[in-house]
Amino acid sequence: METVIKIACPDEKGLVHKITGILFEKLLNVTHTNEFVDEAFNQFFMRVSYVGNCDIALLRAELKAVLPFDATVDIIPPAVKRVVLLVTKEHHCLGDLLIRSQFQDLPFQIEAVIGNHTTLEGLCTQFQVPFHLISAEGITRETHEDLIQKQLDAYQPDYVVLAKYMRILTPNFSAKYLGRMINIHHSFLPAFVGAKPYQQAFDRGVKIIGATAHFVTDDLDEGPIICQDVVTVNHNFSAKEMAKAGKDVEKIVLANALKMVFEDRVFLHENKTIIFE
Amino acid sequence: METVIKIACPDEKGLVHKITGILFEKLLNVTHTNEFVDEAFNQFFMRVSYVGNCDIALLRAELKAVLPFDATVDIIPPAVKRVVLLVTKEHHCLGDLLIRSQFQDLPFQIEAVIGNHTTLEGLCTQFQVPFHLISAEGITRETHEDLIQKQLDAYQPDYVVLAKYMRILTPNFSAKYLGRMINIHHSFLPAFVGAKPYQQAFDRGVKIIGATAHFVTDDLDEGPIICQDVVTVNHNFSAKEMAKAGKDVEKIVLANALKMVFEDRVFLHENKTIIFE
Amino acid sequence: METVIKIACPDEKGLVHKITGILFEKLLNVTHTNEFVDEAFNQFFMRVSYVGNCDIALLRAELKAVLPFDATVDIIPPAVKRVVLLVTKEHHCLGDLLIRSQFQDLPFQIEAVIGNHTTLEGLCTQFQVPFHLISAEGITRETHEDLIQKQLDAYQPDYVVLAKYMRILTPNFSAKYLGRMINIHHSFLPAFVGAKPYQQAFDRGVKIIGATAHFVTDDLDEGPIICQDVVTVNHNFSAKEMAKAGKDVEKIVLANALKMVFEDRVFLHENKTIIFE
Amino acid sequence: METVIKIACPDEKGLVHKITGILFEKLLNVTHTNEFVDEAFNQFFMRVSYVGNCDIALLRAELKAVLPFDATVDIIPPAVKRVVLLVTKEHHCLGDLLIRSQFQDLPFQIEAVIGNHTTLEGLCTQFQVPFHLISAEGITRETHEDLIQKQLDAYQPDYVVLAKYMRILTPNFSAKYLGRMINIHHSFLPAFVGAKPYQQAFDRGVKIIGATAHFVTDDLDEGPIICQDVVTVNHNFSAKEMAKAGKDVEKIVLANALKMVFEDRVFLHENKTIIFE
Repeated sequence: METVIKIACPDEKGLVHKITGILFEKLLNVTHTNEFVDEAFNQFFMRVSYVGNCDIALLRAELKAVLPFDATVDIIPPAVKRVVLLVTKEHHCLGDLLIRSQFQDLPFQIEAVIGNHTTLEGLCTQFQVPFHLISAEGITRETHEDLIQKQLDAYQPDYVVLAKYMRILTPNFSAKYLGRMINIHHSFLPAFVGAKPYQQAFDRGVKIIGATAHFVTDDLDEGPIICQDVVTVNHNFSAKEMAKAGKDVEKIVLANALKMVFEDRVFLHENKTIIFE
Repeated sequence: METVIKIACPDEKGLVHKITGILFEKLLNVTHTNEFVDEAFNQFFMRVSYVGNCDIALLRAELKAVLPFDATVDIIPPAVKRVVLLVTKEHHCLGDLLIRSQFQDLPFQIEAVIGNHTTLEGLCTQFQVPFHLISAEGITRETHEDLIQKQLDAYQPDYVVLAKYMRILTPNFSAKYLGRMINIHHSFLPAFVGAKPYQQAFDRGVKIIGATAHFVTDDLDEGPIICQDVVTVNHNFSAKEMAKAGKDVEKIVLANALKMVFEDRVFLHENKTIIFE
Repeated sequence: METVIKIACPDEKGLVHKITGILFEKLLNVTHTNEFVDEAFNQFFMRVSYVGNCDIALLRAELKAVLPFDATVDIIPPAVKRVVLLVTKEHHCLGDLLIRSQFQDLPFQIEAVIGNHTTLEGLCTQFQVPFHLISAEGITRETHEDLIQKQLDAYQPDYVVLAKYMRILTPNFSAKYLGRMINIHHSFLPAFVGAKPYQQAFDRGVKIIGATAHFVTDDLDEGPIICQDVVTVNHNFSAKEMAKAGKDVEKIVLANALKMVFEDRVFLHENKTIIFE
Repeated sequence: METVIKIACPDEKGLVHKITGILFEKLLNVTHTNEFVDEAFNQFFMRVSYVGNCDIALLRAELKAVLPFDATVDIIPPAVKRVVLLVTKEHHCLGDLLIRSQFQDLPFQIEAVIGNHTTLEGLCTQFQVPFHLISAEGITRETHEDLIQKQLDAYQPDYVVLAKYMRILTPNFSAKYLGRMINIHHSFLPAFVGAKPYQQAFDRGVKIIGATAHFVTDDLDEGPIICQDVVTVNHNFSAKEMAKAGKDVEKIVLANALKMVFEDRVFLHENKTIIFE
């Protein structure tokens, strides 16, 4: 597997030359290189993957030395991402991810699933994945989130994935996982934010429905978009049938987004994503 | 070519039997039949196309006789639709439609083009289509629309197509062409209503952009949707490049919508379209 | 749930009138009606779904009485289809279908899975679905198929689904399940028939790859196509990465095809399918 | 506009460092950089675009000096490509390209159109583009191609585009324009090579049809693929309707392919294309 270097800094001439120079000196076996300059913000982004051993701390220091002082340099050794899922009652995203985790279709492992209903406990058990019921019944939103927080702390996951978790999170909570919490929203955002997007889509009479995977921010449904796709519908579809038709798009869009994130291909910048596929 | 029968009425048992009975008695050569029942509104829609001669007034009367009293029965003999386009400065939809009109790719003919700038006059002249400049400079919106109205009256078109006409129409004006005026909006509505949708899309960082063809109503960008499609974009796209990438989707979506409309396949109901492809 | 009437016969005037007349007399609550005439073969196809009770044998007799003597009339009461899967080593289609079966996402139930390797036994066990290993090692193709045949006879399934079953079946075997055995082929047929389609696609340098679900006939990869879809690739994709990218298309295309088949929406005619969605 | 550097050579460590070093010394304003290594052939490809002035011969020499001896280095100053089209009777691709040329939607200019029928002469005249009729009637294929050759020589085009030119070219002729002649084939190759692909598609009962833009080689329909796309069809489509439905895909796929080629984003290697979008 590959080690990934992610660099983000203000753009200036010669960055690629300086960076590749250091990699060349170390005779690293570079497998892929991608760069992008966001001209609106004069921001430089680069992803380099290499195979082989190398003192990461030293490499990082040498890179920092030739880059602008405020450069971000992440060097990520190959590792399966440890993930906890939050779910409610819908099984299609959870089921798809459980299979991908068990068969290593994606470089991640589901450490545990937290649900606010028992509906999906059985499915997790089938895959020998711990399921923690944290009901929101009769307690405040804050208390509920504190309980989820404690459970998450027990696992220290790299990422938290909202696999059709149907409760709104407080800014306070989502702030703790900025850039590490991904949600699947069942519409092609920014269309149909908020509740019941398929009912909204039906009422509007749209001819396409879709799904959007995005990082969770304190602004509901406004986080940086990672992946989107759509499927065509027509007058024959009831709101319920639209919801059914949307499930496959949801699970595939979420999986595609997680692939990009878990392979360290995604940069976050100014509420947008730069993704090196 | 085919004659098309369009029937809309409250649903009740036996409608198809009664309708097809009349067609059978007349030994009409029926080529296609489609029905749909909107259960939310208990509304029945049927489209029948047939080849051959038949007293249309009589046929209509016989159909009315067996249908609920408030049934709508349209019988449309084969005819090329007479269309006037409204444009501003962008050429891609106009150019595409001029070619389709000249070569009869769609069952329509462009009678004339009205523009509020001279930019596209030359293109119309190349196709020997009358171009009427009606500038909005220095006059009120109402006066401008009155002038357009007068020009349209001179042609009595079956349909008015807003082929990237970039001015907002008053409810008063659009009301005159309810169900007969089609607009192409450069976003996958209801996302990015109003001005500069591509800039909005860029600012939001979406991964898909699209286009929507819809009937114009007094509610801006809220009319019944006929056709939509999308194209994928990524962080490499500037707002300007998104706009460029969207042009082809716009022209194809508009052409597809017009095909459905001009072939009398579209029913309007409760701000939605029922389309029998 | 709905009862489905499927009618196929030579076309003649008045068929719809006669058929709907019988349904009207019985005051059946018809939910959907679709007709299609294959003009090349002058063949009429109709699907009617209704809710409510009715003497099926009688209804069938009455319909036959008004239809051409060689008409096919199937009346299918609502029922979950009983299905047996054949698999080899790949898990993505099997896993997707196991989840859809367990949660009744499709109107079917997986009675058992037959594999020629043990690879997928564990996954079936997780879903408490019987797995039968029938290895092809050291026996003739005919003997192997006889063993599969015997196992299938024990379940008497409505349909047999080849969910990435990687062995070629003899015409003798496939003939037994004509119209009841569906295969997923990992290319957009007729491109890349036979073995290693992704390697073929890579070697040819295509920019799209796809999948095709089709009924199995005695002619390898030439059976009637039910459903197809594609996904874009580029020069970055190795043959292996194309295969990986294709897995999701394969499982979704297969699921979409099975939905059409299990909802009795598919007619077979002259090596083609007529599908009333 | 940008100058584009295209480099292709055997891969070795440090290439990017050496190349960017030279660009850095010259303080060129690099706008985009893309690299790709074809591991199967250990071949390195790089595209760099920059704005500003620079002695191209000198830059080329300096780059050659640090690259493997057999490296290909093309430095292409900004320029509108000069193109000649070959057509037969179908207007949809020609019309689309005439508009794009007139309005500079793509960085190309149509110098002339050569047709083997007069059908499209009028359309060219509307756009004031010279049309040359070179009929194939009563002469040998070789004689016909010689006449086309002479006409092409008169224009010395950068590229020749077969915009629905329905005659097969001899290897001898196509060899003269290797990498400079693009064809649009009306199927998703390699499906339905040869004549009447839509009839073939209809006969096979496919659920998708498509188009493929590719470089022309001496092997009919086997040249390197640049761009492909598809559109869904169903049992309602006759072969003729499939052909009609395919026209829009054909013209958009061809336009997208030409955009990549005319922007110097396409590398040819081992009958495949590497495209830096």
